[in-house]
Amino acid sequence: MNQSNATVAPAVKSWVESANLPDCEFPLQNLPYGIFQAAGGAPRAGVAIGDFVLDLAALARAGLLPCEAGVFEQPRLNDFIALGPEAWSAVRARLGALLASGDATLQGDADLRSRALVAQSDATMLLPVEIPGYTDFYSSKEHATNVGMLFRDPKNALLPNWSELPIGYNGRASSVIPSGTPVRRPNGQIKPPDQERPVFGACRKLDIELEMGFIVGVPNGLAEPVACADAERHIFGMVLLNDWSARDLQAWEYVPLGPFNAKTFATTISPWIVPMAALEPFRTAQPAQSPEPLSYLRHDGPHAFDIELEAWIRPQGASRPSRISRTNFKYMYWTMAQQLVHHTSSGCNTRVGDLMGSGTISGPTPDSLGSLLEMTFNGREPITLETGEKRAFIEDGDELDLRGSCQGDGYRVGFGHCSGVVLPALDAR
Amino acid sequence: MNQSNATVAPAVKSWVESANLPDCEFPLQNLPYGIFQAAGGAPRAGVAIGDFVLDLAALARAGLLPCEAGVFEQPRLNDFIALGPEAWSAVRARLGALLASGDATLQGDADLRSRALVAQSDATMLLPVEIPGYTDFYSSKEHATNVGMLFRDPKNALLPNWSELPIGYNGRASSVIPSGTPVRRPNGQIKPPDQERPVFGACRKLDIELEMGFIVGVPNGLAEPVACADAERHIFGMVLLNDWSARDLQAWEYVPLGPFNAKTFATTISPWIVPMAALEPFRTAQPAQSPEPLSYLRHDGPHAFDIELEAWIRPQGASRPSRISRTNFKYMYWTMAQQLVHHTSSGCNTRVGDLMGSGTISGPTPDSLGSLLEMTFNGREPITLETGEKRAFIEDGDELDLRGSCQGDGYRVGFGHCSGVVLPALDAR
Repeated sequence: MNQSNATVAPAVKSWVESANLPDCEFPLQNLPYGIFQAAGGAPRAGVAIGDFVLDLAALARAGLLPCEAGVFEQPRLNDFIALGPEAWSAVRARLGALLASGDATLQGDADLRSRALVAQSDATMLLPVEIPGYTDFYSSKEHATNVGMLFRDPKNALLPNWSELPIGYNGRASSVIPSGTPVRRPNGQIKPPDQERPVFGACRKLDIELEMGFIVGVPNGLAEPVACADAERHIFGMVLLNDWSARDLQAWEYVPLGPFNAKTFATTISPWIVPMAALEPFRTAQPAQSPEPLSYLRHDGPHAFDIELEAWIRPQGASRPSRISRTNFKYMYWTMAQQLVHHTSSGCNTRVGDLMGSGTISGPTPDSLGSLLEMTFNGREPITLETGEKRAFIEDGDELDLRGSCQGDGYRVGFGHCSGVVLPALDAR
Repeated sequence: MNQSNATVAPAVKSWVESANLPDCEFPLQNLPYGIFQAAGGAPRAGVAIGDFVLDLAALARAGLLPCEAGVFEQPRLNDFIALGPEAWSAVRARLGALLASGDATLQGDADLRSRALVAQSDATMLLPVEIPGYTDFYSSKEHATNVGMLFRDPKNALLPNWSELPIGYNGRASSVIPSGTPVRRPNGQIKPPDQERPVFGACRKLDIELEMGFIVGVPNGLAEPVACADAERHIFGMVLLNDWSARDLQAWEYVPLGPFNAKTFATTISPWIVPMAALEPFRTAQPAQSPEPLSYLRHDGPHAFDIELEAWIRPQGASRPSRISRTNFKYMYWTMAQQLVHHTSSGCNTRVGDLMGSGTISGPTPDSLGSLLEMTFNGREPITLETGEKRAFIEDGDELDLRGSCQGDGYRVGFGHCSGVVLPALDAR
């Protein structure tokens, strides 16, 4: 089934009035899935509509959804996602109809409506999926080039393998946390250039990486690689992702086996998973790929998505947050389809809920960089925030937030917040 | 509670006669945990004793174990492991008593005995734990030096960070499989030195890595690092581990983010988890560490374990397997305690069932190398097997098997098999 069947036409409005405001991130055309908890109830599945969370368990118990309530009465979305693309489409189509202006099924049932519509301000959003595996790619050509220039040979900034395959590595799934969870500054080994041995202490170069991630919805078995033409069918939806990074730990540890402690302490994702059906209207062409990829990585047509992205920082006590980056997911050189195809080309299996990060998304201009490492040239040239503070890297008390949205014709499909406040490191022993 | 309380004295014998034979890997002093399936029954927990699997669910239902039967009526051991060290000790002590010569509780109950003792030859062993995270270290100095000499600067084979911290990387948990599962040769990108671009096709340098792994039994929370003095308390037990590796894929992909597709296609573990209490009598001193580790990595006393290890290969149609390596876990430079402490020092959390691989275990002599890469100098000098065949790397149809055991006074604590037959690659497109 083509997921685009479940897209909602731009002109259709909702009887949930707040969903129709032009700046609302959660119009009828979005309907992202999350796990929420409210008023002491058990965690359960919901979709965002305007200022509300719609309780899917309540709707399903009332017989209004084409699947069992049990899949929504869970602290994670995995059981629902595992139902597969036809179920996703059917539920999305039904939700679109129930929430559309003129439909009285839910709007006219005051009792059910009051139970099923929970103000987002009264809800706590939890991690939306159990993540069996987390993989992080490195698919922005601009980012890979910038990092190569900073740390390796400026003349050959891009390594030869980069243009041939979507470089990626296994991330640490245990420390993926939902937006709003504070992040403890890590301790680790740091090698001062003027000392013979490393020291153990608080990270001095704490950074963000502005990324997006996709959630695997249709798994593949061991030794059953995914074909490129079929790859997008495996993707359930997307989230914002901040791949917090300790640059000083990373510089010392990463040769030869890659980043480890520099990134295992926290990865923040937005709590709403925007389904691919909601993103379908924003499909656009990926950058030209040269050399032409090997045949297993080839796909016809557009496979990028036009998603505007921003990074914001708010120092402790600052009057307001300052935007430090504005970029777009469409700049990614390797597509999500190619990432999944390469990942599984060895025979590697995936599971429902697997998270695949894009890698830092940097654009072509200085104001579109996805990490402080790049913005400040590894801390050598601090940036000045709109509120006057300077930042080489992240300081204790800073709140970082990522935002993302697609601008439609009279509506906006947004991802919510992907934020975290940085707490001081524990005493190092 | 000191787990050594639950060790069983060497002189104690079992009424299960096959457990008392000097070469038996599963005497009363071992009692490793696994998940088995027999005669169409549901997968459930058991311990190995002699030639049998003892059905823990049956024992618990009969009221003979100090915990609920429910934790054993599961397809994975995680619920039991999550009960913690006191429960592990109590169950182990009870099992030791029930199976000891002279105890008639189980031996004298013919009905229960016939239900609870299943011949290992009638049982299929499954993956013993759900593995939320898999981390692989690189802690053999001999292996790291050998690899550095092959691929980097022979004069500075060991990188400067290697002696300061237990280098590790995130592995892929989804493709960890139990002994006996066939392994499909992976496809991937290979860069021939005489060609400008890589080709996509079947791995030509398929290798094993002889490793051991430990299973986390007591988790730590996010931003709650484990102290070195406390680290061993977090470990439930150990397994054999074969970190199958595609050397040609690895050489092309691994800079700068580490191994990915070269290792994501399969990791085999032995089905029995030998509890640390059974290994306690084989505790021995780790190699001297120079320079002295930074304070967070220091621990007093012996933290290595004397576990003899072997790797075997049996070409398709060969009359018998040939041993290709004989080494020992005690050669590891970094201890399991130090690995766990470093892993969590950033604040990274662990979960019950996490698997931590040692990295390839190579000893100091040519017959004690843990990979064909080292044995054959990256394929340049093939080895000759005892049955006459030559091998540079693994060929289709080869069966690889790892074995491991501790030699006690009149008994042997073994790990069973960690084997897999290599199947031909899928057609590359």
